[in-house]
Amino acid sequence: MGQHTEKAKAKLHSLNAALESGALAKVQRILNSGLAPVDVAHLIESSPPKARKILWELVDKELEGEVLQYLSEELQSHFLSDMSAAEVVDMTADLDTDDVADMLQQLPERVTQEVLDSMDQVDRARVEAILGYPEDSAGGLMNTDTVTIRPEITLDVVLRYLRRHKSLPAMTDNLLVVNRQNEFIGLLPVSKLLVSDPQQTVREVMTTDAKIIPATMHDTDVAKLFERHDLVSAPVVDAAGVLIGRITIDDVVDVIRETADHSLMSMAGLDEDEDTFAPALKTSRRRAVWLGINLITALAASAVIGLFDKTIEQVVALAVLMPIVASMGGIAGSQVLTLVIRGQALGHLSGANFRWLFNRELIVAGINGILWAVVIAIVTFAWFHDIKIALIIGSSIIINLLVAAITGAALPLILKARGIDPALAGGVILTTVTDVVGFMTFLGLATLFYL
Amino acid sequence: MGQHTEKAKAKLHSLNAALESGALAKVQRILNSGLAPVDVAHLIESSPPKARKILWELVDKELEGEVLQYLSEELQSHFLSDMSAAEVVDMTADLDTDDVADMLQQLPERVTQEVLDSMDQVDRARVEAILGYPEDSAGGLMNTDTVTIRPEITLDVVLRYLRRHKSLPAMTDNLLVVNRQNEFIGLLPVSKLLVSDPQQTVREVMTTDAKIIPATMHDTDVAKLFERHDLVSAPVVDAAGVLIGRITIDDVVDVIRETADHSLMSMAGLDEDEDTFAPALKTSRRRAVWLGINLITALAASAVIGLFDKTIEQVVALAVLMPIVASMGGIAGSQVLTLVIRGQALGHLSGANFRWLFNRELIVAGINGILWAVVIAIVTFAWFHDIKIALIIGSSIIINLLVAAITGAALPLILKARGIDPALAGGVILTTVTDVVGFMTFLGLATLFYL
Repeated sequence: MGQHTEKAKAKLHSLNAALESGALAKVQRILNSGLAPVDVAHLIESSPPKARKILWELVDKELEGEVLQYLSEELQSHFLSDMSAAEVVDMTADLDTDDVADMLQQLPERVTQEVLDSMDQVDRARVEAILGYPEDSAGGLMNTDTVTIRPEITLDVVLRYLRRHKSLPAMTDNLLVVNRQNEFIGLLPVSKLLVSDPQQTVREVMTTDAKIIPATMHDTDVAKLFERHDLVSAPVVDAAGVLIGRITIDDVVDVIRETADHSLMSMAGLDEDEDTFAPALKTSRRRAVWLGINLITALAASAVIGLFDKTIEQVVALAVLMPIVASMGGIAGSQVLTLVIRGQALGHLSGANFRWLFNRELIVAGINGILWAVVIAIVTFAWFHDIKIALIIGSSIIINLLVAAITGAALPLILKARGIDPALAGGVILTTVTDVVGFMTFLGLATLFYL
Repeated sequence: MGQHTEKAKAKLHSLNAALESGALAKVQRILNSGLAPVDVAHLIESSPPKARKILWELVDKELEGEVLQYLSEELQSHFLSDMSAAEVVDMTADLDTDDVADMLQQLPERVTQEVLDSMDQVDRARVEAILGYPEDSAGGLMNTDTVTIRPEITLDVVLRYLRRHKSLPAMTDNLLVVNRQNEFIGLLPVSKLLVSDPQQTVREVMTTDAKIIPATMHDTDVAKLFERHDLVSAPVVDAAGVLIGRITIDDVVDVIRETADHSLMSMAGLDEDEDTFAPALKTSRRRAVWLGINLITALAASAVIGLFDKTIEQVVALAVLMPIVASMGGIAGSQVLTLVIRGQALGHLSGANFRWLFNRELIVAGINGILWAVVIAIVTFAWFHDIKIALIIGSSIIINLLVAAITGAALPLILKARGIDPALAGGVILTTVTDVVGFMTFLGLATLFYL
């Protein structure tokens, strides 16, 4: 545990104590002096709904925008809904254009228009440029504050030009070289600018093999590009090759975090925007849907069992043992499913190597099926002293593990091809298959051999 | 899908075709000209074992090190095990010190020592500095190639000093200011260097509120710091405050990716280092353990059912319906469990707000318990025309959903406090609880009311 985290935790505790005792003046003092906006945002995220509202109201007006940009979209939209267009304009005056655009996307269309109308022309044009692209595209992710230079000037002129700035945009690791039509033609890395002879021209020093990002590229592909090529920033161009902005690694890190989060949360039927401290009613509604879907699959499994009620009446041991067959299939299948979904996310899986993976999973299921079939058969025999039921459960385990492997491997590909998110739907479908097949094989075989 | 990804996919396909037809000369040409080392590494990762070996052998000697650094630890260790110490030294000559240290950690102690012995003194000292810290600490993550300056010189001198370099280390967004004892005293952001008056001294321009990372900080805390403060690089100091290295965002992105991956994979009983294309036998061994653990929990559930075999013999509908009770509890519990594990990972959960969360989850479980209890009771009555069994299953659903909520919320905290990874053990324990409680309540109530 780092020092930093410890300090933040201590602050959180003293804030919570102050909140509970109603010492709001003290809370206000802690919030607005000393704490960085990102830490205030973290405090608000880590608080239950009522405390959140109080904390937000105690944040100084001039800090509100800074704090808001670090909050989740759900909270942004919650707090923004209470503000007038004029308040939003005031609040967002000092923020980066991409962060402003993100916030405006949380507002109703009408309010967004009002806010845009009250902005000055330059800012408005910049924000509108971003709003023109989907939120999950490079255009929606980019920032418009770029430092551009022309190729024909010398580095000495560049250095003097930069000195006329009060500051450079955050994460300016490259200056962007454009022609008169503002088309992107190359990068001048700041590190090269610093070590090169000032008499050289930009054209002589610039790199022309930069990774250029089309504004329509999906944000997860942008993230892959940044990860694979260790980028800090990259230029964004429109369809005509005109430079329209720049993506920086801090925004890409958010994409990486959200994408990874998405798989984890989806597999439990949760939304990655799901808020740890959402109110009970809202949470209940969201969860109810997932439980309802699961109920349908559970009823399907029950219907299968119902087909064999006569057999169970005669051999009650079947009822005792049948959950084992379904459960082993479910576990084995989820492992394959998770591995394949991760492989898809990392871009490791293609048609050619999928056939290999599929065969490998069949072999693994065969080996583990035989191994655990023997173990379970022995346990069953020791328990019920019935060789027939031991053989039946052993065979069912092998069959269900093979079916689980096939389903777990093939399902993500089939779902993805149909535009369905495998992380969200995969688990439900898989366990339906392993439950139905598990009960069907076990009880079906038993019916054959006992009746 | 981005252009880049499409191109990589096309290359992968043509490579696979060439590999399959045995046109190795063509494969070699594609590998060693035009493809970036990171792309070669990606190709190798995306190939089954045999193709991997062939591809690796076709990589030019001078590219091997570059390619190897982008491979997973498991593959690094696999390929390194075939090399002599001299070959490793040759291969790593041009790499960053942190990447060399990472690779050496994959080698047996004896070989590591041999490699260190054959390195030149400067490199050796640098690598040893990193090897002295755990792999998952800031010290293990850092790079030792820093550009340091003294506070008393002017910016003009700094600019001239930099021009004596051929190049600067990648991601040099700050120059590190140290005193004569090499103690870290501040940062000179390159962006400030570029816009400031060259006659000013470093001391006048430098920032002293930099985030300084102790070498012992855990890598996930380093990642949080980078994420929250949008850092590109940060200085690493030892216990005495002496500057010993620098961490850059590219390595932090790997930590973020691995940490997020860890939760997803652990919940399915997989290791985040688990290789999508590991050979069947290795995979079988790993998976067998998880299936074995699951078998024990399934047997526990079966044992509970076994207690009530007389009841089931009389009312076979119980066997048909009982999986519904267990399954609904398992699903509801996993949702809470996943949410709490994610909250822990994001640092949102502390003692104070946990009580609120716990109460919220009880309310949610109550609401959804009642809702679905009514639905299931109606379905059951329609199916079996038995009001007693409808009431029994309804009550069991409510009880199991409450137990699931309590277990799902409390389990991660209890496990974490005992140093057990909640993502790994949480799911197994949770479903054991919901299975046992589900069967026990449902069959127990039935026994009370029927016998």
